[in-house]
Amino acid sequence: MGKLGIKNIGVYIPSTRTDNVEKLKKFGFKSTFLDEKIGVYKTSVKDVGDECSDMCVKAWTALAKKTSFNKDDVDVVVVATQNADTRMPHAAAYIHGKLDLKPSCASFDISLGCSGFVYGLSTITSFMKANGMKMGVLFTGDPYSKIIDQNDRNTSLLFGDAATATLITDDPEIVPGKFTFGTLGQKAEEIKLVDEKLFMNGSAVVKFVKRFIPDDIRNNISINGLTMDNIDRFILHQASKFMVDIVIKDLGIDKSRAPFDIHDYGNTISSSIPILLEKTLPQKELMNFLISGFGIGLSWASCVLTRI
Amino acid sequence: MGKLGIKNIGVYIPSTRTDNVEKLKKFGFKSTFLDEKIGVYKTSVKDVGDECSDMCVKAWTALAKKTSFNKDDVDVVVVATQNADTRMPHAAAYIHGKLDLKPSCASFDISLGCSGFVYGLSTITSFMKANGMKMGVLFTGDPYSKIIDQNDRNTSLLFGDAATATLITDDPEIVPGKFTFGTLGQKAEEIKLVDEKLFMNGSAVVKFVKRFIPDDIRNNISINGLTMDNIDRFILHQASKFMVDIVIKDLGIDKSRAPFDIHDYGNTISSSIPILLEKTLPQKELMNFLISGFGIGLSWASCVLTRI
Repeated sequence: MGKLGIKNIGVYIPSTRTDNVEKLKKFGFKSTFLDEKIGVYKTSVKDVGDECSDMCVKAWTALAKKTSFNKDDVDVVVVATQNADTRMPHAAAYIHGKLDLKPSCASFDISLGCSGFVYGLSTITSFMKANGMKMGVLFTGDPYSKIIDQNDRNTSLLFGDAATATLITDDPEIVPGKFTFGTLGQKAEEIKLVDEKLFMNGSAVVKFVKRFIPDDIRNNISINGLTMDNIDRFILHQASKFMVDIVIKDLGIDKSRAPFDIHDYGNTISSSIPILLEKTLPQKELMNFLISGFGIGLSWASCVLTRI
Repeated sequence: MGKLGIKNIGVYIPSTRTDNVEKLKKFGFKSTFLDEKIGVYKTSVKDVGDECSDMCVKAWTALAKKTSFNKDDVDVVVVATQNADTRMPHAAAYIHGKLDLKPSCASFDISLGCSGFVYGLSTITSFMKANGMKMGVLFTGDPYSKIIDQNDRNTSLLFGDAATATLITDDPEIVPGKFTFGTLGQKAEEIKLVDEKLFMNGSAVVKFVKRFIPDDIRNNISINGLTMDNIDRFILHQASKFMVDIVIKDLGIDKSRAPFDIHDYGNTISSSIPILLEKTLPQKELMNFLISGFGIGLSWASCVLTRI
């Protein structure tokens, strides 16, 4: 069996948008707040009635349009989400049913937020390798519009809904190298659900990112036997412009190597990295991608992906 | 690195019990219902204020009492649950914080129910192998007392609270062979949460178990290069006496080889298999254990564990 990696990525970003310029006035923010701090002018909102599994199925449809594969070859479905259709059963079961996948296909959710894609990529590829599986799909889909308090100035301008479907095969375009992971469990309550609404201690999260993420990225590149110069693109979790700028500055890299591109839809949690990766993949001259996810838990994970 | 497997298991079953004999009258069941159908006389109930992570920490304490290990060597924590402390963050983050584990320890939850331990065992061992990790802990803890409608005759006599902590190392007592998995996503709604209470279509679940589980167990034993006679103990998910009897009968095995032992605490979801396994492990003459979990999803997973 060849090395397992990413064959292609399907992306679904709902077409409905809310307008942050309108919201600015409500919260009394300066007009520069959108440009300099969050970098989000519109946030995407899922269709009425759509749940996590529906969004994931739409991402699967996008994937199927550009990649030919037989759904009966899918041996495992993993979903990174903390906002499944219901808490029980898991979203992977609904997706399995809606896509009419074979009974022998394994299915489970991973409960993680902004580090979910990187963790999920390690989990699904290692699960597949250990179980002799050749094809799997890693979904991300965390519809935060369900849990945002529209009166919360800390969160209501930031998050957008989206889903992605990443096809993992033994005939991949890019393969993961070594992963690094981390948890700051004693700060677990800095991002959490309170009465079904998101609470986020922004300054605690900034402090966390400064303390752990640039070091983890440098360490990850190093244990992959590479240097900063070898990395063609830094695909960082698109938390906010301010947060991405902090990491870029600490790493001392040019912004052109670390795209920030969520102006039109917002921070889509575990979907932010695969959305950006999908845009970057067609540029065949790019060989090495550093991906790094960080957020709720507090939690982080990084990896280098290399074109083969 | 040696093969990864189970070093030891810590079990926590709360001491508080509800009495099913009392409840029988309320629902008008015959007195034989407990003996012949569910096989549960008392159900365990978590301490007031305890959440999933608290129960898991108690299981960790039980594990630490009987096994010497350094908590700073723990590289990953995986929790199988669908009733974490809150939906966000994941229970693994709380456990990481409460146990004061190292920052480089990976942590995530898997959202699965009664198949959670078997899935979790494959997930954590494959994740550890792929990431070069030598020590991890797989927790199970699904406090159904939070979601049981005490007026529901289908569920209120059946489920008990418990948690387990399984130490995975490269110096194990028993190691997993090949796993099999399955999903019947089109029946995802036969066990689900409705208004924060458990709904279970008992007859649909019985039909599902009859159709898939004995065949999966036979298939799993076969792909592990063994025969039914090689299996010393069949550690089946302890769904109910009726359900375990169905599987035993179909497999044509003697009941002495497939223990049913939940009279005093009930169906503890993903904890039922590790609880039984912990009791069986000290019997050194037993070499091969078939484990099989099945339930919400609908979902199933089986594996043979072998003493080394």
